[in-house]
Amino acid sequence: MKAEVISIGTELLLGEITDLNAAYLASQLPLLGIDLHFISTVGDNRQRLIETLNHAWQRSDIIITTGGLGPTEDDITRESIADFFQEPISIDQSLVSQFKELFKHFNMDMPESNIKQAAVIPSCQVIPNPRGTAPGWWVERDRHVIIAMPGPPGEMQQMWSSVVAPRLQREFCESVIYSSTVKTFSLSEAKLGEITRSFLLARNPTVGIYAKPDGIHLRIAAKADSLDEAKQLVKTTTNEIRPLVDDYIWGTDTDTLETIIADLFIKKNMSLATLETDTGGILANTITNVPGSLQFFKCGIVINRSELGERFGIDKNVISRYGPLSQEAVREMATSIRREFDTSVGVGLTGVIENGDATHKLGTILIGIDDGKNTYAFQRTYPGTRLQIKQRAAIAALFELRKIML
Amino acid sequence: MKAEVISIGTELLLGEITDLNAAYLASQLPLLGIDLHFISTVGDNRQRLIETLNHAWQRSDIIITTGGLGPTEDDITRESIADFFQEPISIDQSLVSQFKELFKHFNMDMPESNIKQAAVIPSCQVIPNPRGTAPGWWVERDRHVIIAMPGPPGEMQQMWSSVVAPRLQREFCESVIYSSTVKTFSLSEAKLGEITRSFLLARNPTVGIYAKPDGIHLRIAAKADSLDEAKQLVKTTTNEIRPLVDDYIWGTDTDTLETIIADLFIKKNMSLATLETDTGGILANTITNVPGSLQFFKCGIVINRSELGERFGIDKNVISRYGPLSQEAVREMATSIRREFDTSVGVGLTGVIENGDATHKLGTILIGIDDGKNTYAFQRTYPGTRLQIKQRAAIAALFELRKIML
Repeated sequence: MKAEVISIGTELLLGEITDLNAAYLASQLPLLGIDLHFISTVGDNRQRLIETLNHAWQRSDIIITTGGLGPTEDDITRESIADFFQEPISIDQSLVSQFKELFKHFNMDMPESNIKQAAVIPSCQVIPNPRGTAPGWWVERDRHVIIAMPGPPGEMQQMWSSVVAPRLQREFCESVIYSSTVKTFSLSEAKLGEITRSFLLARNPTVGIYAKPDGIHLRIAAKADSLDEAKQLVKTTTNEIRPLVDDYIWGTDTDTLETIIADLFIKKNMSLATLETDTGGILANTITNVPGSLQFFKCGIVINRSELGERFGIDKNVISRYGPLSQEAVREMATSIRREFDTSVGVGLTGVIENGDATHKLGTILIGIDDGKNTYAFQRTYPGTRLQIKQRAAIAALFELRKIML
Repeated sequence: MKAEVISIGTELLLGEITDLNAAYLASQLPLLGIDLHFISTVGDNRQRLIETLNHAWQRSDIIITTGGLGPTEDDITRESIADFFQEPISIDQSLVSQFKELFKHFNMDMPESNIKQAAVIPSCQVIPNPRGTAPGWWVERDRHVIIAMPGPPGEMQQMWSSVVAPRLQREFCESVIYSSTVKTFSLSEAKLGEITRSFLLARNPTVGIYAKPDGIHLRIAAKADSLDEAKQLVKTTTNEIRPLVDDYIWGTDTDTLETIIADLFIKKNMSLATLETDTGGILANTITNVPGSLQFFKCGIVINRSELGERFGIDKNVISRYGPLSQEAVREMATSIRREFDTSVGVGLTGVIENGDATHKLGTILIGIDDGKNTYAFQRTYPGTRLQIKQRAAIAALFELRKIML
C-alpha cells in the first residue's frame, strides 16, 4: 500500500509553523507496513488542493490530509474533497446537535459558523473527534481512501490512534516495518558508505546513512509479515554490519553519548571533573543535560588558556614547555583537575575555535583523560563553524571517555 | 513568481527527522516577494523525484530542492535532475581538486565516493558550499529555475543567504520586501499580541509575532518598489511600536543576547566570571559561543550545590542560613566569584531543573549579579523541559546583566 500525506494550511507555506503532523504520520505509517511515498504541503486554496488530490489519487492508495477542517472561511478541505469527487454537500443534523451539546457543556452558544463543520457528502463516513468540533472524513472508492483529519496535533493524533490506524491495519495492511539505528563516530559518511556498500544496495532490509552532529548513523529497516520476523531481519543485518565498523559504534536508537557516559559513571559509582579552556564549557553543559548527572559530575571549570599555570595545581612548567595547545598540557589539565576535586576521572579539553594559524590549525581539538590509573591524550581536527567545532569537541571527548571506561 | 520547495530524503518520510529546511525556506521566500505554493517531500527514489520535478516544473517558476547531494548511493538528486533535463553527467575536475584540498587540510585522503559530488551537467552552474563537500546546482531554462541545495541545515542556510537569495532577488524579483525583527524578553506572546493588535491587522507593513527560545520576536516586513521605500515603511512602524514595549526590547535582527553582552564587556574593557550549580555551565557555554569572548570571560565554574560553602571564598554561613536556592545565596556566589577571580562583574546562577517540590518548584531560576558597586538578585519561574529551563536561565541572566550594564 502506498500512502501520501497532504498538509493543508497557508501558515505552513509562510514558515510560521513547522509541520509536526506530517512528521508524526510519517513515523506511524511504517508500523503498519504502509509506505509513505510523498508528503505535500498546500495552502488554503481550493484549486491547488484539488489539483494536489488529483495527483495523489493517481499515484497513491491511501491519502491522508490534515488541516483545513475548521469553521472559518479559509478552511476548505471538505469543499475541495466534495469537488474532487463531484458530490454535493449537505449538513448532517445529528452532528449539529452534537456540537450544540458540546457548547452547552461549556455554557456557550454555538456560533453559526460551526455548522460548516457538520458538512458531509454521500460517500463520506464521519470520524468522531472527541477533542474538538472538527470531525474527520473517511472517503473510500475503488480501493483508494482519502482520510481527512483536523490540523491541531492533539486532535489529529487522538483520531489517528483511536480510529484511523486500527481501521487501516484491519482493511489495508499486510506487512509491518521495523527499524533500528546504529550510531558511529570518527568515521566519514563516505567511508562508512564504502564499507557498507553492499547493504546500501539491498532491498530488504534497507540500510540508510545519515550525517548527524554526533556522528554518522546507519538505519536498518525491514519489512515482513510479522513484527517478530521484521525484527529478526534487522537483527541479522545489524549483526553482519557490526563487525565491519565495531570500533566506531558507540550506541543505538535513542542513545546519546552523554546518556551513555552518565549511565557508566552512575553504574560504576565514579565521579568526574572537567577543565576546559577555549571550548568554553560545552563539555560540562552537555554532560549536565542528562537528568541525574549532578550525582557524578562534581565540577566543571572554564578558564583562559593564559591562566592555566596559576590555579588548580596545574604544573606551570608543563604549560610553558609544551604550550597550552599540546597533548602534554591536556594530560596535565586532566590529572590536576582530577586531583584537585578528588574525582575518579578528570578530563582536560582545549582547541582552536577561532584565529587558527599554521602551527595550530582552526578546528584542532585536544583531549586529555586521567582515569586514576593512566593518562591519555588525543588530537583531532574538525571542520565547521565555531559552534560546530565546540560541539564536535564535546562529542569527541565523550566518545574517547566511553572507550576508556569500557 | 511562484515557488515550490522539494525536500528530499527517505528519513523525512519515515518521520525520523522533522523538515526544518522547508520551514526555513518558507520563512525566507516572502522576504523576496516570492509566493510559495507547494512543499513536496519525496524519498531517495529516482523515479518519484523525477515525477515530482515534472509536476513542479509545470506549475512553478522557481523550484528549490534540499537534500540528496551527499556522496553515497542513496543520494540521487543530481542524477534525477540530469534525467529530468535529459542531459549527460560528467565530473568537474576542478571540483575534485577542491575536495582533495579540503580533505588534505584535515589530514585525510578523499574517499573515492566523494567524486560523485563533483558531478555536473551542461546546463548547471555550480553553487559553492563553503561548509561541506556538497556543491549546489543552479539550473535555469525558459525562465524556470531548479536550485538544488544540500540537506544539512547549516550548509543549506549558508548557501541560501550568501548566493541563492541575492541571485533570486536580482534575477527573479520585481518588488522588494524588507523586514526587521525586534526582540523582546519577559513578555508573553498573548500580552505582546494585545499591545500590538492594530499593527497585526495591517497589510503593509505586516507585523508577525514569533515565540523563540530567547523571547518573543516581532517581525515587521514591508513590500515596496525600492529597498529605500520598504526600509522607510518598516522604520515608521518600528518607531510606533517601540515605545509600547520599550522595557522588554533587548535587540534587533541578528543580535543575540550573548553578542550584546560581549560587545558591552569589550567596549567597556570589563571582565566577567560566572559560578553556576544546577544549570551546569550553560551560561558559560552560551557566552563563549561569541567570537572573541575569551578576551573578557575570565572564568566559568560549575559545582555541586552541596559544595558551595567549600571553595572560592563563598561564605558557608550564608548558604546554610538561607539555603543554596535563595536570593542571598546567588548574591554571595556572584560576589565571591568576582572577588576570587578579580573581575569587574560576577554572576551566580542556580535553579531547579529536576525534582521540584512545593518550596522549590521545578523551573525556578535564581540569578545573582555583582558589578563591583551593587549586588542584585532575581527569581523567575519557567515552564518546559530540563534543556528549556537551562536555556531560559542563561537567557534571563544575560537579559538582566544587560540592563544593569546599561
